[in-house]
Amino acid sequence: MERPRHQGMTKNTYMRWRLPLVCLLWEVAMIVLFGVFVRFGPEADAHWEEEKREMNLTSDIENDFYFRYPSFQDVHVMIFVGFGFLMTFLKRYGFGAVGFNFLLAAFGIQWALLMQGWFHSFKSGKILVGVENLINADFCVGSVCIAFGAILGKTSPIQLLVMTLFQVTLFAVNEYILLNLLHVKDAGGSMTIHTFGAYFGLTVTRILYRPNLEQSKDKQGSVYHSDLFAMIGTLYLWMYWPSFNSAISEHGDAQHRAAINTYCSLAACVLTTMAFSSMLQKKGKLDMVHIQNATLAGGVAVGTSAEMMLTPYGSLIVGFICGIVSTVGYVYLTPFLESRLHIQDTCGIHNLHAMPGLIGGIVGAITAAAATEDVYGKEGFIKAFDFTGTYQTRTPSVQGGFQAAGIVVSLLMAFAGGALVGAILKLPIWGDAAAENCFEDDIYWEVPEDEESDVYHMHNPDKPASP
Amino acid sequence: MERPRHQGMTKNTYMRWRLPLVCLLWEVAMIVLFGVFVRFGPEADAHWEEEKREMNLTSDIENDFYFRYPSFQDVHVMIFVGFGFLMTFLKRYGFGAVGFNFLLAAFGIQWALLMQGWFHSFKSGKILVGVENLINADFCVGSVCIAFGAILGKTSPIQLLVMTLFQVTLFAVNEYILLNLLHVKDAGGSMTIHTFGAYFGLTVTRILYRPNLEQSKDKQGSVYHSDLFAMIGTLYLWMYWPSFNSAISEHGDAQHRAAINTYCSLAACVLTTMAFSSMLQKKGKLDMVHIQNATLAGGVAVGTSAEMMLTPYGSLIVGFICGIVSTVGYVYLTPFLESRLHIQDTCGIHNLHAMPGLIGGIVGAITAAAATEDVYGKEGFIKAFDFTGTYQTRTPSVQGGFQAAGIVVSLLMAFAGGALVGAILKLPIWGDAAAENCFEDDIYWEVPEDEESDVYHMHNPDKPASP
Amino acid sequence: MERPRHQGMTKNTYMRWRLPLVCLLWEVAMIVLFGVFVRFGPEADAHWEEEKREMNLTSDIENDFYFRYPSFQDVHVMIFVGFGFLMTFLKRYGFGAVGFNFLLAAFGIQWALLMQGWFHSFKSGKILVGVENLINADFCVGSVCIAFGAILGKTSPIQLLVMTLFQVTLFAVNEYILLNLLHVKDAGGSMTIHTFGAYFGLTVTRILYRPNLEQSKDKQGSVYHSDLFAMIGTLYLWMYWPSFNSAISEHGDAQHRAAINTYCSLAACVLTTMAFSSMLQKKGKLDMVHIQNATLAGGVAVGTSAEMMLTPYGSLIVGFICGIVSTVGYVYLTPFLESRLHIQDTCGIHNLHAMPGLIGGIVGAITAAAATEDVYGKEGFIKAFDFTGTYQTRTPSVQGGFQAAGIVVSLLMAFAGGALVGAILKLPIWGDAAAENCFEDDIYWEVPEDEESDVYHMHNPDKPASP
Repeated sequence: MERPRHQGMTKNTYMRWRLPLVCLLWEVAMIVLFGVFVRFGPEADAHWEEEKREMNLTSDIENDFYFRYPSFQDVHVMIFVGFGFLMTFLKRYGFGAVGFNFLLAAFGIQWALLMQGWFHSFKSGKILVGVENLINADFCVGSVCIAFGAILGKTSPIQLLVMTLFQVTLFAVNEYILLNLLHVKDAGGSMTIHTFGAYFGLTVTRILYRPNLEQSKDKQGSVYHSDLFAMIGTLYLWMYWPSFNSAISEHGDAQHRAAINTYCSLAACVLTTMAFSSMLQKKGKLDMVHIQNATLAGGVAVGTSAEMMLTPYGSLIVGFICGIVSTVGYVYLTPFLESRLHIQDTCGIHNLHAMPGLIGGIVGAITAAAATEDVYGKEGFIKAFDFTGTYQTRTPSVQGGFQAAGIVVSLLMAFAGGALVGAILKLPIWGDAAAENCFEDDIYWEVPEDEESDVYHMHNPDKPASP
Repeated sequence: MERPRHQGMTKNTYMRWRLPLVCLLWEVAMIVLFGVFVRFGPEADAHWEEEKREMNLTSDIENDFYFRYPSFQDVHVMIFVGFGFLMTFLKRYGFGAVGFNFLLAAFGIQWALLMQGWFHSFKSGKILVGVENLINADFCVGSVCIAFGAILGKTSPIQLLVMTLFQVTLFAVNEYILLNLLHVKDAGGSMTIHTFGAYFGLTVTRILYRPNLEQSKDKQGSVYHSDLFAMIGTLYLWMYWPSFNSAISEHGDAQHRAAINTYCSLAACVLTTMAFSSMLQKKGKLDMVHIQNATLAGGVAVGTSAEMMLTPYGSLIVGFICGIVSTVGYVYLTPFLESRLHIQDTCGIHNLHAMPGLIGGIVGAITAAAATEDVYGKEGFIKAFDFTGTYQTRTPSVQGGFQAAGIVVSLLMAFAGGALVGAILKLPIWGDAAAENCFEDDIYWEVPEDEESDVYHMHNPDKPASP
Repeated sequence: MERPRHQGMTKNTYMRWRLPLVCLLWEVAMIVLFGVFVRFGPEADAHWEEEKREMNLTSDIENDFYFRYPSFQDVHVMIFVGFGFLMTFLKRYGFGAVGFNFLLAAFGIQWALLMQGWFHSFKSGKILVGVENLINADFCVGSVCIAFGAILGKTSPIQLLVMTLFQVTLFAVNEYILLNLLHVKDAGGSMTIHTFGAYFGLTVTRILYRPNLEQSKDKQGSVYHSDLFAMIGTLYLWMYWPSFNSAISEHGDAQHRAAINTYCSLAACVLTTMAFSSMLQKKGKLDMVHIQNATLAGGVAVGTSAEMMLTPYGSLIVGFICGIVSTVGYVYLTPFLESRLHIQDTCGIHNLHAMPGLIGGIVGAITAAAATEDVYGKEGFIKAFDFTGTYQTRTPSVQGGFQAAGIVVSLLMAFAGGALVGAILKLPIWGDAAAENCFEDDIYWEVPEDEESDVYHMHNPDKPASP
């Protein structure tokens, strides 16, 4: 019967006016901005028949919709079910995990359509959207979901919306610097999504450090069925990651190749995760935390290079290493970060996204630097790295250098942005819970009476089970 | 240990001969009818090579399979996992929710292939089926799943099969009137699926009114994990709704546009749902019932207009409004309908499908009436509304009028059909449960001994946990 | 509080060195072999631009990726979520079900890429991989997942990896004999995947017979929520089976036709399963075991013939029969096999895969033998059965005979291979658990303290719920 006792609660977590106000005002802002700026791109516009004639397309199947929509849907599932359910592992924070993820992602994709649109799809005063914009918006929100993993259970929904607003903005700026100014390749987002998202989130959680968090330690674990719910998230992320890394690659061989490389890397990653999960535990038993998370590191780490000629065995090597790095991180690094650096990382995003993201950036830089016309073919070489126009004379090794610069920029943006946003979130106006009420749905959600009470009734002869 | 006590059960819920008889006879009927009528359409028939030559198609990719199969699979997931799991929120009716939904949908798609086939794909005495027929059959069954939501927990599987038989028939007739006689556009089914399905189901549940339903009130709620199972349903419906609304639109820009509009509407809907869920509750906490359902209203409400030039900001506005309408409905209207109008609506389909469906019909009528050649382009205009042949001279405003007529026809069919079917289901031969046994799987399912009994054993020293 | 008591445990289930060693060594072997042999196929290679010119392809959409990738992803979901969650029905073996399935499948797909590659995609010393190879690797692993179903809960992860190694090898050999030597059609794998996989697994479990298994009988059942988790697996298998049976069929009509036939067969199967589940139980109640499994038999049984001109009503008949056969099998045959033949078949794969697989092989042989140029068209006939080259003169009835021979070969390979592998797995070095510890995650997994202990604490005034 014991519901979490709130006797120590001194913080005001009352959401009734604050949350609705933020949601409604921001949504009105979205409508106004969409009204001013967003229109259908040529392939989604009713003028497409004329467009088709102009571009000499003979079939509707040439519409980008048919190249990318299946991948888009897979990515969509990763963001909402993948991340949402991955975070349901906590015994009493399932509603918050899946529900707040839903909220921030639904807001984030709208704001991302605008921010990314201004940078990348702006033509004669309008943002022209198509299926690729939807994928990119989901990608952008993916970096917010990652950061959410670090602060899971410790923030109010308003804080999450504020963080989303800022992080999407910074993401779009960082992405613009990397893709347009540095002319870096990063189709699966090792740098723009994972490195940026994870270090941003880690910086935020560092600034929001809660010294008394051990007061809610009993709720930081999982129960049997919550671990199974989390596996739904894990598996959808794992299965659809080939779609993630190939979703916005060039049509044809690049999409095809990105899917194969990711498939291979992820497969290898599972084996080394299992190996180290068992090896690093005295009793040799497997730990669900590792299986749920470290098995995915292989997908993160080929995010930059999957569309390049990494080759299947190259992908296996990357996956092999990342399963180890990530699992070791969970065992040794997470406790260290918490006790020494005061980084309380609920889901261990440092192990799943930050380190593999860095590795992914580096692998991408090396793969780019090692590219040759022999391996790619003359045309394929130019197409793969888009060495056209101003970049016609760029060499692979220079490209590798720029790729490496992309990692550094992403890190700097993450630290600076995370510090700024962390400071904003620390203001005492957002309604976050006290330390002893963290990881507890009861604060922000109507939680049903559950089995426990039934059981209680069962043993209480005065109150029958079904009155 | 206390299993629900059936002492008050006077109704005969014994299914052993009735259910098998209905299932087997009806399936035999399906086989006979399929044998007489159903054949492969030209794109699924082995003669396709010749067909290709005749139609001057140069590539197999022009087969409709590649335009529509990914969307078909998404719709398929919505019907079986989406609706099935959405309804698992009840604490003791998960088997019935997902299992009966499985049963009625599996029967319904067969009968729908026939009924819709006779109306739309009948050529020289045969129904020629292809992937579009599969999608339409799933759509048709979607309207039955919606009606199921109103009577969830209160009917026997036989009643559900009887309802499916009649509702699919009426759906096909209504669809024929709308699409062929009124020449109305309704690709995502705001009128044919949602308005029809919901008011049909509400009429049925009104006629099946149970005055003593409060006897099973204790089982009408959720438990913590059943709410998480329901979120699986919610999220799959939400994520794949863009596929639903675009699945049978014209190839090319129409499919592309429908997906974008639906994506936008759904995103906006999440924010206003969260806002009003918090605002309408004294403690300001979020209610899972709203999150599970009202977030989807935005998809329903662009079902007619998504393939039109609704534009992204138009979609945001529709989603904005529907999140509010639907959530307010759950808080104020559902109790009112139950107490005053005796409409016991288990899942609140009035809020999720009926009202948003009506809004969707109206938005579609307005969007059609407001269409101009300027916005659509000369060819796009004709293609979007199929203003060819007999309809060559129809103007947008006339089209808008016919769209509005489509709403009225759907409502009339729903009320009349629902009254008829409700009366049939009221016959005392179908094996429905008594009021105190509603919302209880134990009536129709073998239910495993579960944790509760383990717990009991634990405290019972005479009976060890593992004998 | 009572955790399973291990007092009787005499077997050494300590995995700490053995499991990591196997995982790491084998993964290193994969890397070496991939490094030597595996390269991108022409459609995934950066030289694709040149390839396109040579093959006179005018569009990137002609890349096989766009024909098969959506189906690949559906198959991928079936292997990892479908099989994984289907097996979570046991009350205390959810981690093992979904986790070990993950492990063996992740290893299996790598080894299958090699084994199948050597047989089917070997060109100038290299295995050239594309999306079709990924599908085939998933298919191959599907047969291992099936065999896993028979021994679920009774084996160590190392045994599963050893079995995977051998079974994938034997699968590839058997597949080569059927497809290349006998020139048999089996796109959905009734023979190569289901018949082979199931009889292989049944032979293995026969050899691993545990006379004292009733010691863990209390853990062989399900609990309420574990049955719902299992339904996730069931539904994803059911919904995506049309993709499974059509994934590697010829482009165009064959893929289209295979999807339609499978859809029909599965729909019919649900109704006869429900009918017989109710009919064979005294109280007439439905049994979740049947709904979770027998509803899928219709997909298995059209695995060979789905791409042929089976026709929708033919598919309904096959599904009709298989729902009955499979459900009857669960009620009567499984207990018989266990008590008389000492075949302990945890998931009842004999009913879901073995018998329907055999039926599928036979239906395929008959459908092939009955093929005529009239039904298929001259070109379609040649294309459907690939009657070209050496097989130019083969007649349908001869093809039917070879199809039947394929069944026999698959059975022989399964029995011989299963006996060999069973004998290897019987060696006392693999760390399997004692009979009383079967079906218990606690042996190989860190299992969280769960509700039970909370409940216990609740009633224990000396130990507060949250210390």
